[in-house]
Amino acid sequence: MEDSIMISTDCVFCKIAAGEIPSTKIYEDSEFLAFLDIGPVVKGHTLVIPKKHYNPITGTPPDVLQKLILVVQKVAKAQFDGLSADGINVSQANGKVAGQIIPHIHFHVIPRFEKDGHSWNWKAKKYDNPEEMKQLAEKIRKKING
Amino acid sequence: MEDSIMISTDCVFCKIAAGEIPSTKIYEDSEFLAFLDIGPVVKGHTLVIPKKHYNPITGTPPDVLQKLILVVQKVAKAQFDGLSADGINVSQANGKVAGQIIPHIHFHVIPRFEKDGHSWNWKAKKYDNPEEMKQLAEKIRKKING
Repeated sequence: MEDSIMISTDCVFCKIAAGEIPSTKIYEDSEFLAFLDIGPVVKGHTLVIPKKHYNPITGTPPDVLQKLILVVQKVAKAQFDGLSADGINVSQANGKVAGQIIPHIHFHVIPRFEKDGHSWNWKAKKYDNPEEMKQLAEKIRKKING
Repeated sequence: MEDSIMISTDCVFCKIAAGEIPSTKIYEDSEFLAFLDIGPVVKGHTLVIPKKHYNPITGTPPDVLQKLILVVQKVAKAQFDGLSADGINVSQANGKVAGQIIPHIHFHVIPRFEKDGHSWNWKAKKYDNPEEMKQLAEKIRKKING
């Protein structure tokens, strides 16, 4: 999954960052860019990216990720204030199976409104038994910091 | 939307952080906790929280958010490595309309597998015209840094 490189010549988001593909910008500084998603889940849906090409979240340098999340926060605040949003979804996908289409790390910042007509397919499942839960946790836990 | 306080006596996540409600822990340090969601979208689904009560993302101090996202990254890496996940969804909701149930900031880190049977209801819509897009962007943009 880790395919971090500085530039990807066939990456749509690298081209947007370089200005080779136009975008409707929300925020830009030397390292980061926020722009409207052309296929919004809810209108106002914004994408936040580092200009350099990193992917996925685990292949993104910690300092880049830390600055990126502050741009996400900045955009969320501006959506609350500028669009009078009732809520906001922040979403970041890694891998095709997770729904990631462009393999360049990006956060979706999606304004939500009482009557926006959208709902996620959030289906909470259950563990078969407490032991299953413990064993799964142990598998993850032993790789933390590993 | 901004209801940051240090402790919320009736907050389930504050109680989990304090050890008053048990949880299946994945990671813990003095400021942050990661534990399994008892209603997983996909088994292994982990929640990452600051122990102090902040909500929503715009009411969370930047330094806390920056440390929180590194715990998210750590958990994502451990899910890739420990569960051989094919992908990962990182998700953070603000407000009931966005699907937030517990109003204490939390990131969902959800492992994804080729045949996990889950799909989000991700419906990309369209803007009526370029002008609508520009006007919406301007509303957000003028509140950036505001």
